[in-house]
This record gives sequence, C-alpha cells and structure tokens, in this order.
Amino acid sequence: MNSRIESIEAQLFRVPLPKVMTDAKHGAHTHFELVTATVRTADGLEGVGYTYTGGKGGHAIRAVLEHDLGPALVGKDAAQIEALHDAMWWHIHYVGRGGITSFAISAVDIALWDLRGKREALPLWQMAGGTSARAKVYRGGIDLNYTLDELLASIEGYLAAGFTAIKIKVGKDDLAEDLERVAAVRRLIGPGMPFMVDANYALDVPRAIAAAKAFGPHDILWFEEPIIPDDYRGYGEIAEATGMPLAMGENLHTIHEFEYAIAQSKLSYLQPDASNCGGISGFLRVAEMSRAASIPICSHGMQELHVSLVAAQPNAGWVEAHSFDIDTYTTRPLQLRDGWAVAPDIPGTGVEFDWAKLKHAATQSAPGE
Amino acid sequence: MNSRIESIEAQLFRVPLPKVMTDAKHGAHTHFELVTATVRTADGLEGVGYTYTGGKGGHAIRAVLEHDLGPALVGKDAAQIEALHDAMWWHIHYVGRGGITSFAISAVDIALWDLRGKREALPLWQMAGGTSARAKVYRGGIDLNYTLDELLASIEGYLAAGFTAIKIKVGKDDLAEDLERVAAVRRLIGPGMPFMVDANYALDVPRAIAAAKAFGPHDILWFEEPIIPDDYRGYGEIAEATGMPLAMGENLHTIHEFEYAIAQSKLSYLQPDASNCGGISGFLRVAEMSRAASIPICSHGMQELHVSLVAAQPNAGWVEAHSFDIDTYTTRPLQLRDGWAVAPDIPGTGVEFDWAKLKHAATQSAPGE
Repeated sequence: MNSRIESIEAQLFRVPLPKVMTDAKHGAHTHFELVTATVRTADGLEGVGYTYTGGKGGHAIRAVLEHDLGPALVGKDAAQIEALHDAMWWHIHYVGRGGITSFAISAVDIALWDLRGKREALPLWQMAGGTSARAKVYRGGIDLNYTLDELLASIEGYLAAGFTAIKIKVGKDDLAEDLERVAAVRRLIGPGMPFMVDANYALDVPRAIAAAKAFGPHDILWFEEPIIPDDYRGYGEIAEATGMPLAMGENLHTIHEFEYAIAQSKLSYLQPDASNCGGISGFLRVAEMSRAASIPICSHGMQELHVSLVAAQPNAGWVEAHSFDIDTYTTRPLQLRDGWAVAPDIPGTGVEFDWAKLKHAATQSAPGE
Repeated sequence: MNSRIESIEAQLFRVPLPKVMTDAKHGAHTHFELVTATVRTADGLEGVGYTYTGGKGGHAIRAVLEHDLGPALVGKDAAQIEALHDAMWWHIHYVGRGGITSFAISAVDIALWDLRGKREALPLWQMAGGTSARAKVYRGGIDLNYTLDELLASIEGYLAAGFTAIKIKVGKDDLAEDLERVAAVRRLIGPGMPFMVDANYALDVPRAIAAAKAFGPHDILWFEEPIIPDDYRGYGEIAEATGMPLAMGENLHTIHEFEYAIAQSKLSYLQPDASNCGGISGFLRVAEMSRAASIPICSHGMQELHVSLVAAQPNAGWVEAHSFDIDTYTTRPLQLRDGWAVAPDIPGTGVEFDWAKLKHAATQSAPGE
C-alpha cells in the first residue's frame, strides 16, 4: 500500500508576536504556539498539518501527537481520511470530546488532506468544494489594550495593506469606552466598509444586549462572541432582543457543539477554525451543516489555509486575516487581490512552512515527552 | 503568606491492570494512567492531587501541569481554592472547555483540597458537606470481553470481597447476547441485589430503547450511558419511551455540560468524576446542582476519594468501586463495612499514595516536555 503511514513527526514552535496583543478574556498574548504534524507515507510523500494556540497547551498537543495519535496511526492507510478521523476521535475519546485532543486531531487531519492533494494533484479549494478560488476577507485585530490612537493607527495600517473590511476587539469594563472606540473606527473607515466587533465572551446576556443596542447605529456587520460559547440559548436571546447579527465558532470543538449552536443560537455567521474543530474534515462537516441552515460559513485564524476552505463553499462568508500571522512563516503569505483573498492553486493544502524562518522559535524536542 | 504555593510537581505512572479489560467503546485496557500533582506551600505542607485515564492522554495531562498550570500557580495563595479553580479554567480556556485540561485542573484542585484539610485538620467528608462518613457502594466490572463463565466468576469474586451491589458492561453487537448475560447475572445474585448495566455509549436511541425494554424484567437499577454523552435529548427520549432509570456523568467535563444533562436528559442518577470535572470543587458544584434537581449524586472511578464526596451529600447515591483499582496503590484501600463504603477520617483527602508500590509504573521524567 503506497499510502501506508510510515511516521508522524510533531514539532512545537513558540513564535513571538511583533507586539503584545490583548483581548477581553485571554489577557496579553506575547507568543503564539504553532504545532506541526508531518505525516510520511510509504510512497515517499509527505503531508504537513498544523494547529496553533494563543500560547498555552502546545506541549500537551505535541504530547498527544507523539504518544497517543502517532502510534495508533502508523501502518494505517493515509488515504482513508474520513475513517481515520473517526478512529482518532474514538481512540482518545475518554480524554477528548474537545479541547487539546481536538487540536491534535486537527493537525493530523490537515496533513492527511495535504497528502491527498499531493497524491491526486488537486489544490485544497478544489478538494473542498470548488465553488471559487477567492473569498471575502477582513483583518481582525487583537487590540483591546491599544490606546484609541494606537487602535486607529493599526487600522490605517490594515487599510494600507489592502484590507477592505476590519474587526476590532470590544469588551472593556465600561461600555462607554467600547462605544467611543467603535464610533471612532467607523468615522475613520467611512460609512460603507464592513466592520465587525468581537467581545471574546467578556459579557453576560444583559450586558451583551445593552452593548448590541449601543453599537447598532454604527452599522456593525456582526457582533462576535458577546457571551460564553457554552450558553447556546443566551446567543438566541441576544439576537432576538436586539436584531444584531451574531457570530461564533472558534471555541466550538466538536460537531455536537456546532449542532447545538446552529439549532439554538440564531447565529448570522458561523466561524469554525480547522485548527481546533477536527481539521479540514471537521471544517467541511460544519460547512455542510451551515449550508443546510443557510448560515454563511466564515473562519477564524490561519488565513493561509482557510482561504481555500471558505472560497470553496457555495455559502462562503468571510475569511478572517488573523493577527497571529502564521502565513508570514510560510512560503506563500496570504494574497489579496482587489480586496479579495486568493486561494493557492498548487497540489495539497498550499501551506508550506518556511522551516528556516521558524527555526528561532523551535522548542527543545522532548524524546521522553 | 504561609499558604503561598512554592512548587507543583507532576508525575505520570502507567499502571498495568491484572487482566485485560474491555468495554463497548474504548477497546481493550491493559494499563491505566495515573497523573499526580504534588503542591508544596511555604509553610512546608504538601497536598497531593491526581487524575487518571484509561491509558491515553497522560503525557498531555502532565504537559499541561508542567508547562501551563504550574508556572501560573506558583506564588499564588493555595487557600483560595475557588478563585484558583476559576483562574485555571480561564488561563487555559482557549485549548480547554473540557478534555485534557479538565483532567489537569482536577489534579491540582484535589491537591489544594488536600492542603486545606491538612491545614485545618479536617477530613474530606466533613469539608465536602459532612452528612455522613459512609456511602452505598457497588462494584463496577469492565468485563465485556469476558466469557459468560468468566463474567459470573468475576461477580462471585466481588460478592466474596463484600460487595452487595454490582454493575456489568453491555453493548454487544447482538442484544440477545447482552440479555443472556444480564439474565445469568441476575440469576446468580438473586432477586434482591442492586444491579446496574453500562453500555459506554455503544448504542443509538432506537437500539437503546430496545435494550432498555429487554433488560427491564431483570430489575435493573440503572442503565448507564446507553448513547453518546453529547446527545442530551436522546437520553430524555429513552427515559420517556421505556421508564428505565438512566445514569451518566463520567464523560461530562464542564459545569455547562452538567447543566444541559440535568435539564434535558431525564437522568435518575448523576455520576460525575472528580478526576475530570474540575476536581473536588467541580464535583461539589455538580452535587449542588443535582441536589437542586432531586437527582441522587453518584460517582465514577477513584473510589478512595469519591467515598468521602458522595457520603458527605444529603442526596448521596452510590459510589462506584471501579476496576481501575487506584486505591490499592494507596496506604488505605477502600474500606467496606456491612456492605457500605467508609470514608477516611484523617485530615486532607485521606488518599495517600504508596509511592514505593507505584515506582515500577513510573514513566521517564521529561524535563523538556
């Protein structure tokens, strides 16, 4: 069997951010963690998958890859992606059903799709649905700690870089302060530009309703994660009380969580992240559910991969160009054309890491881990 | 501050089982993993907490303790258990909300309660509610791979050891085979003895309804995890269609999952496991919710600790004496008296590991992990 898995190699990188970035719930980010999974098959092909974190959990993800998933996958057929996806899920189910294991499964799954694309000479946007090779894109800032001047300067930078839609963080203790920032940004970008806000679940339902009503006059495309992701009905209450379009998904790690969110949360946009919802297989299952529910499918993080996944869907929404710029450590950083994000057109995922550039961020390998 | 945390030491043990044990969904168990967290404070006290797995994920749990929770907790006040519990939850939330991180948080939380008991000279059953120092107990077998003769022999062993209630695995592909085993066990133990069955979510709703109806004449105290834990409403459907008392909890890792299960699953028994739902703090929050919902609180696994937690509750249900006999690696294995499980009456959790006995199961320490 040519596609027999011979080995899985896991690597962990701690990548420093150019500037300390803060949101309402995760505190200050100084690094992101990148965990890569390189799957090699008997025919000499190599697929690379990956996941990332805000700076915590990377060692545990690597440990799952090295100790739990790797040994179970060697000898299996890499071409049986769906079967391997389910096998991984059940293999570590007792310590799984979300969290760290979803991140680890995602990295392997992405590597298997990379292998499939290379074996079949297909780019990801074609394997994933093929509707289009370009998608709408916005720049998402992690900027709650910025002064108002710094915030506006960062947005001017995004516009200069070619972005035509932007998102900022909200969730300050004082709604008036959030509102001042929202109003200032809208003044800066003008009335027509798509503009989203993201509270990283800093609020409860009453505060979220008050915030949504206050933000309303500034023409907000969506209000992301106003409350904790676990409170599916709470989202529905906010949507009903305010009419504000809501978005979430980056913190939903299982297909069941997405089912509940779609059924109960009255979301206007769904934002799965292939790095933590089961990889490309997980993302595509969510995309199928979102299509059935007539909700545009968007993405969170790792724009270099999601551009292909979102573009490929008939109900494509927006790709987030995230501030953890993993794409700058690849040989093909995200490409914008006329404000659109353009998917890579090479076999596989189209994400090839610049290992030399990542070298400074490598962590000590831990054979006993 | 005397209760300042000076260090947290994590250890991982792979403990061989005396016999290969199989259930319907996790396959063959040859080992369990024990991960311990030893928290030392400025006053020279030492608290020990722990968690366990069915053989996968232990390295990742240790990695979370060493790399993510440990560094964040050193210097904090060990006496502020509730605040530290919530701080741990949010510190690793992005890779958390269940799974590996819930296991790691649990180990630390149990160590903090052990410290509290030692500092205040209180045994766990008093700290946890104080209703009683003894609890009903049953022996839970992991025996789906046993022949019928082996199954009956194992149960005779449990009865000889003093147990007066027992649980077996079900979930064979053929319901007739499950039914034969259930009928044979009921014949063996006689009509009066409490008898539970556990399918480890091997079934779907229609099959579970058929099984519950078939088991009914054999006077089953509860039917545990007939279907996946994520399908809260599915449990409710089975309960309504059959009247069979249902139980679950070992796979619910967050307070939100317990909220959904209590609201939608029509459970007759709730079975949290302090090793994976946030430790003693997590267990007590679930116990409070179960009391409000008039559901008896039971436990899954690590009987040497849960005996105190269950006994202490006014709505105490049953302690499971699990087949992963962690208690035999402590200085005080579970004590039965007149068929009841008796809580330890010494300061702290009352769980003191016999480190010498565990030595053979230690894994290589991984400084770079």
